[in-house]
Amino acid sequence: MVRINENFLKLKAGYLFPEIARRVNAFADQNPSAEIIKLGIGDVTEPLPAAIVAAMHSAVDELASRDTFHGYGPEQGYSFLRDAIAEHDYKGRGVNVSADEIFVSDGSKCDTGNILDILGTGNRIAITDPVYPVYVDTNVMAGNTGEADADGRYGDLVYLPVTEENGFVPDLPTEPVDVIYLCYPNNPTGTVASRETLQQWVDYAKQHNSLILFDAAYEAFVSDDNVPRSIYEIEGAREVAIEFRSFSKNVGFTGVRCAFTVVPKDLKVKISSGDEVALHQLWNRRQSTKFNGASYVVQKGAAAAYSSEGREQMKQLIDFYMTNARLLREGLEAVGIRVFGGVNAPYVWLKTPNDLSSWEFFDLLLEKGHLVGTPGSGFGASGEGYFRLSAFNSRKNVEAAIERFKTAIG
Amino acid sequence: MVRINENFLKLKAGYLFPEIARRVNAFADQNPSAEIIKLGIGDVTEPLPAAIVAAMHSAVDELASRDTFHGYGPEQGYSFLRDAIAEHDYKGRGVNVSADEIFVSDGSKCDTGNILDILGTGNRIAITDPVYPVYVDTNVMAGNTGEADADGRYGDLVYLPVTEENGFVPDLPTEPVDVIYLCYPNNPTGTVASRETLQQWVDYAKQHNSLILFDAAYEAFVSDDNVPRSIYEIEGAREVAIEFRSFSKNVGFTGVRCAFTVVPKDLKVKISSGDEVALHQLWNRRQSTKFNGASYVVQKGAAAAYSSEGREQMKQLIDFYMTNARLLREGLEAVGIRVFGGVNAPYVWLKTPNDLSSWEFFDLLLEKGHLVGTPGSGFGASGEGYFRLSAFNSRKNVEAAIERFKTAIG
Repeated sequence: MVRINENFLKLKAGYLFPEIARRVNAFADQNPSAEIIKLGIGDVTEPLPAAIVAAMHSAVDELASRDTFHGYGPEQGYSFLRDAIAEHDYKGRGVNVSADEIFVSDGSKCDTGNILDILGTGNRIAITDPVYPVYVDTNVMAGNTGEADADGRYGDLVYLPVTEENGFVPDLPTEPVDVIYLCYPNNPTGTVASRETLQQWVDYAKQHNSLILFDAAYEAFVSDDNVPRSIYEIEGAREVAIEFRSFSKNVGFTGVRCAFTVVPKDLKVKISSGDEVALHQLWNRRQSTKFNGASYVVQKGAAAAYSSEGREQMKQLIDFYMTNARLLREGLEAVGIRVFGGVNAPYVWLKTPNDLSSWEFFDLLLEKGHLVGTPGSGFGASGEGYFRLSAFNSRKNVEAAIERFKTAIG
Repeated sequence: MVRINENFLKLKAGYLFPEIARRVNAFADQNPSAEIIKLGIGDVTEPLPAAIVAAMHSAVDELASRDTFHGYGPEQGYSFLRDAIAEHDYKGRGVNVSADEIFVSDGSKCDTGNILDILGTGNRIAITDPVYPVYVDTNVMAGNTGEADADGRYGDLVYLPVTEENGFVPDLPTEPVDVIYLCYPNNPTGTVASRETLQQWVDYAKQHNSLILFDAAYEAFVSDDNVPRSIYEIEGAREVAIEFRSFSKNVGFTGVRCAFTVVPKDLKVKISSGDEVALHQLWNRRQSTKFNGASYVVQKGAAAAYSSEGREQMKQLIDFYMTNARLLREGLEAVGIRVFGGVNAPYVWLKTPNDLSSWEFFDLLLEKGHLVGTPGSGFGASGEGYFRLSAFNSRKNVEAAIERFKTAIG
């Protein structure tokens, strides 16, 4: 008799975004004339940069002719893209990552989930709270947690609160953990980690033989030169950390699908025999066996982001969204809201006024301002009393939203 | 201390295609003037159909403008593609599969590997021998096997030989198995399963509460109306089978990347509490959490394969490759080789002459004919003494290859 993975049954049925959709739809049904502005999900709105559009057209044309046709590509990604990444994202910034340590994929969501394939059972997992839900749910599926409690916290997971009280800097765990998820610039709080904070984590990982899974999907939004954009800017990180990056937000690839994961060759783990195994070798085997490379057309588009034209257009796109973030911050502060993030990240994290719960504030904004954001409690119990707004929107919508804050909250 | 998945260490280091590449490169180094023709890997060679090229260009243009931009799509795939699949691949052939039972992805290799995420530990797995290596390797990684023996057979896996002796029809297992991989039209043997054979398997699965993983990546190459193209043409299959399909071979998407998996809602499994759980629900949760949809541009291209123009162009492409297959069959038979497959599948499976081993025949073809094929033993111990040739090539290469067979073997 076939057995299913019963860990899936531990997953809580109600997921954040479906519940938001349910409330928005109910409101829209009762208020058909209301023009609702959505500042919730972190999906981009602006068109692809022209250099990328041109490269994708050109790649499609290549596939239209026998002489330039491309079939199966390398599972790890084409050299033209891996080389460009190594050159511009790492070497150009003085960071030691070689092209063959870069694995191109169709998304960071996939990679941050799939990475658990190469990790064993019995690892103690630490996440920050609030957190990107995929880290939690994939560990539930993999059997690394117990059941969820009434607050939605899963047994055996180590939650590291990040709140206004600790300045959104997680304390080191008081019990040893084996795997630590860190996301900087952070989703959902929009905050960043200093060099010193990251050094502490790398030192912790070295001391405890732990693995850091570093999600840098939003690194392009860092404008402050003192803020690290890669974990590999930190001494010793090549021995303890895997880094995930994405083209989703910097060049608008949420629907195009391209990302990459860096597994340094220095990252080795002791196995039960006492020998050491390189995670690079395991991930290479995982990807070769269970993945067939990202689309050629998509990889050609991603590579164009590194041309001089592409880099300029990427910068303009990021500036556009970061101006949105600044306007949102200023607009909220003008009506007396305490705001975090939004300086080196496209998310603004706010403390709800009058001690409203996250969902109470959600309902207030929806009813009085016809605005949709994301309740902080949806990202974890420590997100209660907070709220996330996304800077991914048109300027017109952002400006209209700011006016509506005044009506709804002011 | 972080623990890795030590099941990966059971995987045999030498994989089939790297070994082929090594021997070919060594030969080419010593014979720099030899023009080597590769009939090995099953990668397509012909350009994308014009209707698909046009649709992909149009999709890229949509992403170039704010008004028509698409960000995150549904993880399960866009309705325009799922509806087209349900209509043309199933309903149009009298098969009951609804659009919401279809999960679009970036590849069948991914899906046939990832499906193990929703299955539990302790399942007894059956595969045919020879077999597509991904089924084996992903089960090794998932811990469903023991160590490999000297022949490369893994402990705890149930191997079902398919050879000339049993007409390439696997016998039902003599011990109960929980999961059965079936691939028809078959890779590597190019043979097909009759309706009666598949009915036996469905009946077996129902009797033993087993799950059939049915890989139909080559269904478009079936020309015989009596040969089932979907497992769901078989009575009762909706309760026991998952079907995998791909755009890789029928419209040349090996580098473009699109596939789909069908999980019928009638497919339910009893869990330890005694309740039943629908695998549809689990796969939907797996894909929503660990996947972010196939590229919009790619899905638009795939959908164009179902337009009247696209269907005509797909038919021409398949006819082209199947003419190659026929020429290969006839050319081999003319020099006295016993040939199987290649009638309803793009692979020709041949018995090596003079009791040569698969690798001996490989070396002979390479040295005397400058031809590269795939040793049958690379697909499993029961493939020893057989050899695979792929019909995916230009006509010119196929015709030249046939001439060279005469020299090398005739």
